[in-house]
Amino acid sequence: MSDERPFRSIHQLGYSNLLDLFSSRSGAESRKYLHGTEESSGVMEFPERESADQLLLASSGIYLEGVHFDLSYSPLQHLGFKLMTAVASKLYAMNGEPVSAQIDLALPNKVSVEMCEKLFDGFDKGGELYQCNVIARDMTASRHGLIISVHMQGVADRQDLITRKGAQAGDQICVTGDVGGAMAGLRILLREKKAWMETGQDTFHPDLEEYSYVIERQLMPRTRNDLKEAFTSADVKPTSMIELSKGLLNEVQLLAAASEIGCELFLPAIPVALETRQVADEMKEDVDRYACYGGEDYEMLFTLQEGDVEKLQTSFEDFSVIGEIVDRDEGIRLNAGDGSPLDIDNLN
Amino acid sequence: MSDERPFRSIHQLGYSNLLDLFSSRSGAESRKYLHGTEESSGVMEFPERESADQLLLASSGIYLEGVHFDLSYSPLQHLGFKLMTAVASKLYAMNGEPVSAQIDLALPNKVSVEMCEKLFDGFDKGGELYQCNVIARDMTASRHGLIISVHMQGVADRQDLITRKGAQAGDQICVTGDVGGAMAGLRILLREKKAWMETGQDTFHPDLEEYSYVIERQLMPRTRNDLKEAFTSADVKPTSMIELSKGLLNEVQLLAAASEIGCELFLPAIPVALETRQVADEMKEDVDRYACYGGEDYEMLFTLQEGDVEKLQTSFEDFSVIGEIVDRDEGIRLNAGDGSPLDIDNLN
Repeated sequence: MSDERPFRSIHQLGYSNLLDLFSSRSGAESRKYLHGTEESSGVMEFPERESADQLLLASSGIYLEGVHFDLSYSPLQHLGFKLMTAVASKLYAMNGEPVSAQIDLALPNKVSVEMCEKLFDGFDKGGELYQCNVIARDMTASRHGLIISVHMQGVADRQDLITRKGAQAGDQICVTGDVGGAMAGLRILLREKKAWMETGQDTFHPDLEEYSYVIERQLMPRTRNDLKEAFTSADVKPTSMIELSKGLLNEVQLLAAASEIGCELFLPAIPVALETRQVADEMKEDVDRYACYGGEDYEMLFTLQEGDVEKLQTSFEDFSVIGEIVDRDEGIRLNAGDGSPLDIDNLN
Repeated sequence: MSDERPFRSIHQLGYSNLLDLFSSRSGAESRKYLHGTEESSGVMEFPERESADQLLLASSGIYLEGVHFDLSYSPLQHLGFKLMTAVASKLYAMNGEPVSAQIDLALPNKVSVEMCEKLFDGFDKGGELYQCNVIARDMTASRHGLIISVHMQGVADRQDLITRKGAQAGDQICVTGDVGGAMAGLRILLREKKAWMETGQDTFHPDLEEYSYVIERQLMPRTRNDLKEAFTSADVKPTSMIELSKGLLNEVQLLAAASEIGCELFLPAIPVALETRQVADEMKEDVDRYACYGGEDYEMLFTLQEGDVEKLQTSFEDFSVIGEIVDRDEGIRLNAGDGSPLDIDNLN
């Protein structure tokens, strides 16, 4: 029963390409599937529904200790909350909203019941903020580290649905809040952890008061559950949207691929918090790298028809215009502000 | 940031109790949650729906290499199919049906793209049988073994929904198909694997022809997607239902706890295939243990009001009456057929 096909490593192919490979599989013809699977969430028609104005959304994430989180500096309540943010962001990115969250856990021996309680305190806090129930579903044993699978169901009104497709040349590229903060927080936490490990002390209690903004961005990020109302109030509908989970340039690429367009980004316009700049300075690192490549901000990237930018600003201010959609053959360009294009070839 | 609460091990508490502990958490009041979380699937009301005749179901499972499956004797296509069966069974147990399945994978280096393809061939085969789309969602790296998270959304008509609650004294306890076969298959596979490891050969190609029935029960189990129609045709509605995933007696206990009743089971009435008996004989083991404790059959256990047994038999024959619901204070009793009660204290 061994595998006789050739070995092609997933690392060679890349996770994103792997996902593409399996994103459009068969399935019974009797169930309609509305949108492409390159979206943030799966989008389904309801079978046998009389009113066809609502769509079912499903999103998920699987998170492994040692790969996605480090319990030495991630308090469990914060971790639970953060993973709710991560998965909810995929529903909000479709302009939908969560209905219910399910949690599956695979637990190693070192995790106690009390630790699970803390984790669920965090899930619940996310459930309160994102207005959804939290249900523990599958609990099982793990031989290597804690594994957390979060899946959410959501709904979106058909006419409100926004996907990664739909951006057109001339649209303005917008981003909410500021970016790079979560990466700045991670850099500080990793530095403190390294220093702590060198001391050989048992417990890790760094004084991070002066870094509270970026630490909170890393450990307890919130996602944008305020956009749907803002769009409705301003009577605008973005032409495309995507959540910022793996880094601004990564998400711009995904949006460009889905919409079949190019992007020109103005580096000086990308919003970065003062606290994030200070960390980059302290670490002697380039803050533009934090802004462009730093993940886990869970802000939203969306595109607006040109006239809609001002319309949105009348009711909602927490966003910045960072670039413009261009023709596909122009590719993705990063403009440093002096007109010179920057090299973004080494994007990973 | 260390954990200061006392350490209570999950092993001490038990996974089932752990699940209970976290099954009824808060969540925003604005979202209604219809049923208890001791059910096979989460059951949600749709927010802002005009027609309230349909409910949303969500079920899931997380499966780890080395804990839930062994790739040395589980071909990947079969594994994909089996996990679809496992999760779909939780929706069918509510008398609902799947709409969509999402797959998250955490992949160790040893897993190739081609191996993923085989796995998805299996998921797709499950999607065809259970009439749902299959969507790859989250793909990530694993440092230790393959991890597969399957989650499904489904729907049930409100008046058709069946839960674990509702069984009443006098109801007949029914089980579909036969039980213990998957465990018999596992016993053979483990024996062959042991023999193979002792030979030191590279590849594992046992001749299992004579055990094909039980091997298929273990590696490619199907669940009962034929019951809803059978109930409708016969115009009966079970008072409770649960899928057989961890073993008959385990599921009887869960149903008894949810319905707050007792059960008397007649051991000679529990349906066991001839092939399963032959394996038990060959292994010099007690076939009743396979039948009572063997998991992964994915048959259904349900309870019918007494008059409904005959009604169902007119349109559907593949079930057996194996006992009767009794008062709660009578507990769970296993009757050996000669009137003597069997000891089921050591149930785990």
